[in-house]
Amino acid sequence: MKNAIILFSGGIDSTTCLEIAKEQGFACYALSFAYGQKHTVEVERAKKIASLAGVVEHRVLNLPIGEYGGSSLTDASITVPDHQDVSGIPNTYVPARNTIFLSFALSWGEVVCAYDIFIGANCIDYSQYPDCRPDYLQAFETLANLATKVGREENQGFKVHAPLLHLNKAEIIREGNRLGIDYGQTISCYRADQNGHACGTCDSCTYRKKGFAEAGMPDPTPYFTR
Amino acid sequence: MKNAIILFSGGIDSTTCLEIAKEQGFACYALSFAYGQKHTVEVERAKKIASLAGVVEHRVLNLPIGEYGGSSLTDASITVPDHQDVSGIPNTYVPARNTIFLSFALSWGEVVCAYDIFIGANCIDYSQYPDCRPDYLQAFETLANLATKVGREENQGFKVHAPLLHLNKAEIIREGNRLGIDYGQTISCYRADQNGHACGTCDSCTYRKKGFAEAGMPDPTPYFTR
Repeated sequence: MKNAIILFSGGIDSTTCLEIAKEQGFACYALSFAYGQKHTVEVERAKKIASLAGVVEHRVLNLPIGEYGGSSLTDASITVPDHQDVSGIPNTYVPARNTIFLSFALSWGEVVCAYDIFIGANCIDYSQYPDCRPDYLQAFETLANLATKVGREENQGFKVHAPLLHLNKAEIIREGNRLGIDYGQTISCYRADQNGHACGTCDSCTYRKKGFAEAGMPDPTPYFTR
Repeated sequence: MKNAIILFSGGIDSTTCLEIAKEQGFACYALSFAYGQKHTVEVERAKKIASLAGVVEHRVLNLPIGEYGGSSLTDASITVPDHQDVSGIPNTYVPARNTIFLSFALSWGEVVCAYDIFIGANCIDYSQYPDCRPDYLQAFETLANLATKVGREENQGFKVHAPLLHLNKAEIIREGNRLGIDYGQTISCYRADQNGHACGTCDSCTYRKKGFAEAGMPDPTPYFTR
């Protein structure tokens, strides 16, 4: 049984990724980050979901990304906006976040001999984020094998798996349904409150709602009233 | 005046890098990490050197690399060895460390508009480390411009500068001498004690000693007696 690192926020995408990795026969090491995100409740929810999913280990690392701000997700002086249909990278972009997350996946992966890294990146709904695109993930895999002892000295390299890359949210939800996932536990909202209630209007809520609607599934998300 | 991020440990290489960046006219943002290294004294020394060098800002970020170990520099159960003339990657290799450090340089760099990143990587004396080699640094620069908003949307990209890459330690020390650096403040030892005294026998001390000898310079390092 091969080991895999699953970047795991406790949202729809990473929860689906985790179940896909399990179905493919990997022993799963879930990796979450408390990085100063305003919606810290996602970390608590990630612990619950990872535990129920029976991962080998779930590690939550504290990262100082919020200390220097620069994103509406981490910076008190920048407001998380409601969804708008505009092009360009939104202010919820956290500078180099996936590169930092993937670097820690490499680092921990090398220690626990997990050379398969799963990331729930998706370039359909979230195509704005530069670090969710196919060319980026390919470049990271190349880097990973130059960066590490495993990549340089051993006859096996790191592989970055992004099984949701070309699926839209409805397709992801259908796939999760097939895998028996209860999405009621997952949190996607950028403004989720401490009870895990969602705003319903940020980018993340918007894509999530649309996904359940298009998949023809009831939306299990609890929303708060503003 | 352009801004630059300087990865800054407070050793010979990064201190020289900082002065090179200053000479090239960059406004310097020094970035250090408390990552669970046993020789934490280097962080205190880095603060002192950065302050004397007149950087715009010096940031020390706490990283949880030591939590999962895997290197003699961070793991209490693995001993830092004396230098030996053997090939292969030594146990002082910290999994994916430079990838993590460079990722934070990207992230903070994007926030403070510093798109030039200086790293004191060196592939002559330390050719064992996979993440100090030219092909690795080239791959990181490629990744950096796919990973970020700056790289994707703006007409300027990140550039990784490794001005010491092809210099040996004696050449680096001569260059630092020309730049007026007092290397007596710098710490290189993997086993440095809390007073900043060095062991004299680890890999890092060995290359440092050899560097001063080959450069024909007195070695200013205080050594402890074991």
